[in-house]
Amino acid sequence: MNDSNIPAAVSDAASVLQLPYPYLLFLGDATEAAFAKTAFGLRDWAPERCIAEWGCDTATVSTGLPRLSPKEARARGARGLVIGIANTGGVIGESWVPLLVEALESGLDIVSGLHVKLGSVPALKAAAARHGRRLIDIRTPPPNIPCGVGSKRSGKRLLTVGTDCALGKKYSALAIARAFKARGHAVDFRATGQTGILISGSGIPMDAVVADFEAGAAELLSPTADPAHWDVIEGQGSLFHPAYAAVSLGLLHGSQPDVIVVCHQPGRECVLGHPDFPLPSIAETIDLNLRLGRRTNPAIRCGGVSLNTALLEPSAASELMAQESARLGLPVADPMRPGAEFERLINSCLD
Amino acid sequence: MNDSNIPAAVSDAASVLQLPYPYLLFLGDATEAAFAKTAFGLRDWAPERCIAEWGCDTATVSTGLPRLSPKEARARGARGLVIGIANTGGVIGESWVPLLVEALESGLDIVSGLHVKLGSVPALKAAAARHGRRLIDIRTPPPNIPCGVGSKRSGKRLLTVGTDCALGKKYSALAIARAFKARGHAVDFRATGQTGILISGSGIPMDAVVADFEAGAAELLSPTADPAHWDVIEGQGSLFHPAYAAVSLGLLHGSQPDVIVVCHQPGRECVLGHPDFPLPSIAETIDLNLRLGRRTNPAIRCGGVSLNTALLEPSAASELMAQESARLGLPVADPMRPGAEFERLINSCLD
Repeated sequence: MNDSNIPAAVSDAASVLQLPYPYLLFLGDATEAAFAKTAFGLRDWAPERCIAEWGCDTATVSTGLPRLSPKEARARGARGLVIGIANTGGVIGESWVPLLVEALESGLDIVSGLHVKLGSVPALKAAAARHGRRLIDIRTPPPNIPCGVGSKRSGKRLLTVGTDCALGKKYSALAIARAFKARGHAVDFRATGQTGILISGSGIPMDAVVADFEAGAAELLSPTADPAHWDVIEGQGSLFHPAYAAVSLGLLHGSQPDVIVVCHQPGRECVLGHPDFPLPSIAETIDLNLRLGRRTNPAIRCGGVSLNTALLEPSAASELMAQESARLGLPVADPMRPGAEFERLINSCLD
Repeated sequence: MNDSNIPAAVSDAASVLQLPYPYLLFLGDATEAAFAKTAFGLRDWAPERCIAEWGCDTATVSTGLPRLSPKEARARGARGLVIGIANTGGVIGESWVPLLVEALESGLDIVSGLHVKLGSVPALKAAAARHGRRLIDIRTPPPNIPCGVGSKRSGKRLLTVGTDCALGKKYSALAIARAFKARGHAVDFRATGQTGILISGSGIPMDAVVADFEAGAAELLSPTADPAHWDVIEGQGSLFHPAYAAVSLGLLHGSQPDVIVVCHQPGRECVLGHPDFPLPSIAETIDLNLRLGRRTNPAIRCGGVSLNTALLEPSAASELMAQESARLGLPVADPMRPGAEFERLINSCLD
């Protein structure tokens, strides 16, 4: 597609704040919340930009926002439809296409973080041209990423890592960055996925980088900084993931973190979408990340564990965090539940 | 571009690159053999795919193959002209262009592993379009590579891995595949870099694949096969490399090897080009590859060690191989030195 009607700045990750918001969040045909994490991320971390949700009739997931058609959303001020789905392969579902065309017809631009480019779908390309609307793909890495060099950079870095995909690495990093800032530290949240980029306004879509440049991209993302400055880097995938471990290892090597926080969702027993792959234990995840991370930062350590306890009652969550903390000998907290546990985790990371 | 000479696989949505051989080897204007090493590598490792050579009148280098014009070569069955040059900068010489156009006019596709894309030369792009020929840049991966799934595939797989880049993973895999074949096993060499792809006539340039699809590309490269069939897969990079480990891990996961052979060059103490990074030991390299490889093939084992002893005298090489074999408790051989050591390594891999 020829992008001549897209402002040059839109292809620059640093310019996503110029995207056409407020947004209508599109849920596709999602029947599992984990696949709609982009929509949930925007609702939770950029609520001022989200006015409604919409999707196929078969979608059973909801962000809790009002459900509006593109025409209704446009009438209430929406300017863009954001595809709120992060599915396997990053593809545009066939069943979505007529709905996306309807959005274009209703006067909304479309913003996508999927691997597949919007303009590669002929019906969308034609409808966008017909109605003078924009198709905006934010999952395009910057050009000319260098290969990694591995040299130690000044500044401090924290990377969230996980036992799996889609269980809280982005939320944990956002919450930790916010807590560091609240304590007066100079800190940047570094986004590595489309939702993080939509939320923060900059970053590199690490899973879209050519593998040879993966570590180099991570080096670019958290550049040399003041020795007291923190980069809190959003993790991607898992070293144990049968499809995406390459992304995780390149990000780990290039980020050269001083501190990792291991993210896990209690009760998840298999890799999401890969029922034959049991999830690694938290201890195994810590051990492997430290072993591999030492290659570019021998001083790497684990600051603690972030548990996604969204499915538990508060008392059950507290009990579990205490048990796990005693078992692992590390602070264990749910960053979505402010309190003493989370403060201990932050103390440990800043130590 | 539609071309009845293209094997069906090439037009598949996602396919391993298939090259148009037999080849006419193009020597450009080379006056030093070192610059024509791609042509010499093809002559040495894929003589059955090479029927002739050709070049500018100023070229003084020869592979020893008959010199034929593109028209003559096409008449004798050639289907592609391979640029056999690896020059500084990876550029297409101006003096080559009229000859490459002549090759396209004569019905040959052009295959290049140079950095510069063939299609970036307007005269080549126009001639290819005019004559319905392909310009094949083998550093470009096939489109629509799927994400990895991790399911165990039938057939047996061997992957060469290394303590570093550029120390013999390709030659080891080629020699092992040849030895397997000599013993009557059904075997394919699976190429993962441009030279290997030219030699084997197919493959995927794994370092050019987008990171999210790295394991998926490796799965595509060694598909489900007869239970007794071997894929011998060319390794890339090293899990310990500060820039390229992502490539190595995706390849390891997606290849799900039954057997690894660890390649090392005695005397190399640091990562090539990264003097601050000491090379891992062979034992450490075995251990980490087995640990990570178990994720997609719990039965993974180390078949032995391939030492690149090109810089040693034969007696010193033999002594070193014996010492290392005793120390590691594994067969240790230099695949470039046929003999009892190499036979023991092959026995161990086939066990």
